[in-house]
Amino acid sequence: MFQSFDTTADPTTGPARLARLRTAMAEGELDGFFVPRTDAHQGEYVADADKRLAWLTGFTGSAGFCLALRDVAGVFIDGRYRAQVRVQVDLRAFTPVHWPETQPGPWLIEQLPAGGRVGFDPWLHTAGEIEKIENDLDGSGIVLVPATNLIDELWQDRPAPPQGAVRVQPVAFAGQSHEDKRAALAAILRAAGEKAAVLTLSDSIAWLLNIRGDDIPHIPVVQGFGVLHDDERVDFYTHPARPAGIGDHFGPEVSLYPDAAFEDALVALDGPVRVDKSTAPYAVSRILEVAGIEVSWGQDPCILPKARKNATELAGAREAHLRDAAALVEFLTWFDATARRGGLTEIDLVVELEAQRRATNSLRDISFETIAGSGPNGAIMHYRVTRESNRKLKRGELVVLDSGGQYDDGTTDITRTLPVGEVGMEERAAFTRVLQGMIAISRARFPKGLAGRDLDPLARYPLWLAGQDFNHGTGHGVGSYLSVHEGPQRISRISEVALEPGMILSNEPGYYRDGAFGIRLENLIAVVEAERPEGGDAEREMYGFETLTFVPIDRRLILVERLAQGERDWLDAYHAHVYHKVAPRVSSPARDWLKAACAPI
Amino acid sequence: MFQSFDTTADPTTGPARLARLRTAMAEGELDGFFVPRTDAHQGEYVADADKRLAWLTGFTGSAGFCLALRDVAGVFIDGRYRAQVRVQVDLRAFTPVHWPETQPGPWLIEQLPAGGRVGFDPWLHTAGEIEKIENDLDGSGIVLVPATNLIDELWQDRPAPPQGAVRVQPVAFAGQSHEDKRAALAAILRAAGEKAAVLTLSDSIAWLLNIRGDDIPHIPVVQGFGVLHDDERVDFYTHPARPAGIGDHFGPEVSLYPDAAFEDALVALDGPVRVDKSTAPYAVSRILEVAGIEVSWGQDPCILPKARKNATELAGAREAHLRDAAALVEFLTWFDATARRGGLTEIDLVVELEAQRRATNSLRDISFETIAGSGPNGAIMHYRVTRESNRKLKRGELVVLDSGGQYDDGTTDITRTLPVGEVGMEERAAFTRVLQGMIAISRARFPKGLAGRDLDPLARYPLWLAGQDFNHGTGHGVGSYLSVHEGPQRISRISEVALEPGMILSNEPGYYRDGAFGIRLENLIAVVEAERPEGGDAEREMYGFETLTFVPIDRRLILVERLAQGERDWLDAYHAHVYHKVAPRVSSPARDWLKAACAPI
Repeated sequence: MFQSFDTTADPTTGPARLARLRTAMAEGELDGFFVPRTDAHQGEYVADADKRLAWLTGFTGSAGFCLALRDVAGVFIDGRYRAQVRVQVDLRAFTPVHWPETQPGPWLIEQLPAGGRVGFDPWLHTAGEIEKIENDLDGSGIVLVPATNLIDELWQDRPAPPQGAVRVQPVAFAGQSHEDKRAALAAILRAAGEKAAVLTLSDSIAWLLNIRGDDIPHIPVVQGFGVLHDDERVDFYTHPARPAGIGDHFGPEVSLYPDAAFEDALVALDGPVRVDKSTAPYAVSRILEVAGIEVSWGQDPCILPKARKNATELAGAREAHLRDAAALVEFLTWFDATARRGGLTEIDLVVELEAQRRATNSLRDISFETIAGSGPNGAIMHYRVTRESNRKLKRGELVVLDSGGQYDDGTTDITRTLPVGEVGMEERAAFTRVLQGMIAISRARFPKGLAGRDLDPLARYPLWLAGQDFNHGTGHGVGSYLSVHEGPQRISRISEVALEPGMILSNEPGYYRDGAFGIRLENLIAVVEAERPEGGDAEREMYGFETLTFVPIDRRLILVERLAQGERDWLDAYHAHVYHKVAPRVSSPARDWLKAACAPI
Repeated sequence: MFQSFDTTADPTTGPARLARLRTAMAEGELDGFFVPRTDAHQGEYVADADKRLAWLTGFTGSAGFCLALRDVAGVFIDGRYRAQVRVQVDLRAFTPVHWPETQPGPWLIEQLPAGGRVGFDPWLHTAGEIEKIENDLDGSGIVLVPATNLIDELWQDRPAPPQGAVRVQPVAFAGQSHEDKRAALAAILRAAGEKAAVLTLSDSIAWLLNIRGDDIPHIPVVQGFGVLHDDERVDFYTHPARPAGIGDHFGPEVSLYPDAAFEDALVALDGPVRVDKSTAPYAVSRILEVAGIEVSWGQDPCILPKARKNATELAGAREAHLRDAAALVEFLTWFDATARRGGLTEIDLVVELEAQRRATNSLRDISFETIAGSGPNGAIMHYRVTRESNRKLKRGELVVLDSGGQYDDGTTDITRTLPVGEVGMEERAAFTRVLQGMIAISRARFPKGLAGRDLDPLARYPLWLAGQDFNHGTGHGVGSYLSVHEGPQRISRISEVALEPGMILSNEPGYYRDGAFGIRLENLIAVVEAERPEGGDAEREMYGFETLTFVPIDRRLILVERLAQGERDWLDAYHAHVYHKVAPRVSSPARDWLKAACAPI
């Protein structure tokens, strides 16, 4: 299994570790120390060696940080983790703080007197993050002090950093050689008058060099830092003890160095050097500035080209999604046959679904830990089932099943909501509204230049009319055999990034009633140039979406009479495509199931 | 008539006046002079004395400016006026420049050598506008120079500035005394540590002091400047030669001064003084800064409370809209009877509609010049009919009729699109989509905190699906017996202002096919707290809209089968309300017409 059902929370070790941290703080003349969840590469998942926040506090969520002061230790967590943190940390030692409502700067001003010194590891925080906190602290007399990482000094049995094998991502999947990518990006640097760009995001480096690895669960990256020079050369700094195995993939223009050499290399650069304030460690720009090298703030140059998938990557995504769809259909066939007999648990679903994906013989990993939330667990948006939380499915309940696979040719992410037997009207009405929102995005045609923010309301409008809404974005970007959550594009109130052809997004409206039930539907979609319908404006450039995910949407949950004709037409056409594309890839019983599931409504 | 059909453009006088301006520039050692359309109060309409741009160039549009240099004179106009400018100015003397695509700063850099000096009247440009141009000019060696207004020196027969009577807007319509308004705003200043705020917008002053006037066509304001002190006093600087007549309305805390005293008064203020960078003349902040008085940049404190209509203003708006609706229904009854006989022109419609509004005996003014665009003229978004452009209505055409009235209790603005006989399928299909967009906004329920930008896509989605769109915002704010275009709220891609209960907006999607036809539908709507429907989220605060406009939407243009059930339900309910509310207010023939127009679809 790529997923464990262990309860990783252990609130008992935190207090003693906090006490040792406070001793170390006193020795270092610090009044506080900053312990983030992130590593130096700001990824969503971190290696075991980087789980400092969990080591100190017991809290294992995917975002948050601890500000340990002499008398109080605040664990800053967002809305997703308000309940989880109270189970995972010892509340006598740690104080949960609602973040982002409460920001670290104002909180520090409340807790510390003027003259307070708060240490932080300059590799684990971005320049933008530190700048914001320092702005908030301005005039308070409290300072942030770059320091050696006290956790790393205290953590005796700290795991080794990742040093897995490096694999080539062939051009057959990547669609463009690393030579071509480097040439295109170097031209951008030259046009901007920049001599080099520092790359600190693992997925940027993996994309640029066409490599993949196993350093981090669920995201096939190789951890390290890169420098892209304006003459197309790349220096890649990573753990030196990796097994050889990619032959001469890199060629003469890409040089491999041990990660320990990175700092000295920065000091030897010619400026201006592009650094991404929102993703690069504070240490990077600080080292450059101290060395007198001009820093040019600008976005990591890999981010936009990585987001705009090329034709090969899109073809790969289509194939990966059909392979994944076949596994889902086998799973759903099994589910419908088995659930009716009763006794199934959430873990049973996760195990069976991973087995079906593994049976494709192409699964590299799951793209994140499968969410299988039944009944009230479905209302927990980022629910992860453990042996303790595991529930038996009950008749009349819904199950939210959100999962994805990592394949050489693409990354998938799909959510379906499944009924266990007959489900009530309230759930079906909400399901129908969520479906209407998802269809509105799927069918959308929209003028060039709009951002995800401009489409987000379309997914919510049917729920709004009923006085309902959901508290998450409608969609996130998705990588190409890379991170399942990839920027910069999103369908969200906070996304101002213009959508461009080739960008892959999720389309996943939902509805959640606390303590009762959850609903979510998710397809992946790619931005495409829209065909011009007859009678459409001749001069208007418009984009639309190509749906990539082809798995039936449960008809038993739809109040058909509430759908408008255009919505019905979309659904029938979608199901016809699903059957046509997926039927040839599944077993005979699954084909029978699929035929019924895809009949016109 | 409140509207004339004269062709005001006269391109013949421009070249000689431009030559005289250039002589004056040379005498003043200036290489250019800036001639804006705006006056010192940045309103949409200007008094005859302020029509400097038209005097110099012949161009009479509602926005734009001329940058007159020694060899070239650019007339900057936006998309609405690209055709009009070419008719109104002598193209041998003046060069149309596409604005805002081309900005004044970069254009000046292209046209002038380093050392170039461009004069501007510091009362006619905002501080923000000058700051932006100066930023653009940075490093070019070209400077903007505050100067006396050369146009005013050259313009021999310049009309006198407005000096009309001042009327009281009674609390029965304003809903709040000026004493209470001043107290509330002074408290805001005190909380911000500001000693005073300079008020330069005529509608802000009219709102704050509960006065109205006739200085400007279609906007019932009294031109002047104000200073609101943190002790609730207001000093009002305006033309001294006005007829007396508001008695002791102002009381001891509001003092009237001649406008000539304003500059000296500014210099005598204690700082910090709030100045609105986006609306106050450059001269205001400059005078304060030169005098060493601290300027605190901040929004004109009247803007938000003026936008949030109180219960009395909303009640007035409802009554004004029903009165206006009755006039419209009389007009539409006449139109349906008369149009079929043929021979009607656009001007006939404008004349008849104004007559019907005047017949209410309550019309103070029209709220803007009625747009009556038939056939291809309907595609000109801001069409103003003149005797020269006037067209006979033809069978099979559409007429866009966009008009409004100023009443003591409210300002109206309504657009209907009328068929002349049988209209083709293409027009009816587009009309149906526009109607669907308008219904989507009308029915919307949405979470508190959203801005107009977040709703704008809902009005466009039905058009987008057909590859169509319209090139204007979906809605603008509307004043309470004040400006028909009032900020800060809008339904528009560029509006980030959160919608709040009491704000009145227009809801006016459209569709335009150049040279062929135009369609627009417009109702005014007010933001209200939405009722919580059964099954809605208990904790979610949601807003919705109350429709204020009650005039039938032409059923002959609707493809009923394309409407979803919710849309049909809305339309039938709307028409039932129209009949119920308006029938008692109209003549017997109009009542018969209304009954048929409001029957269920």
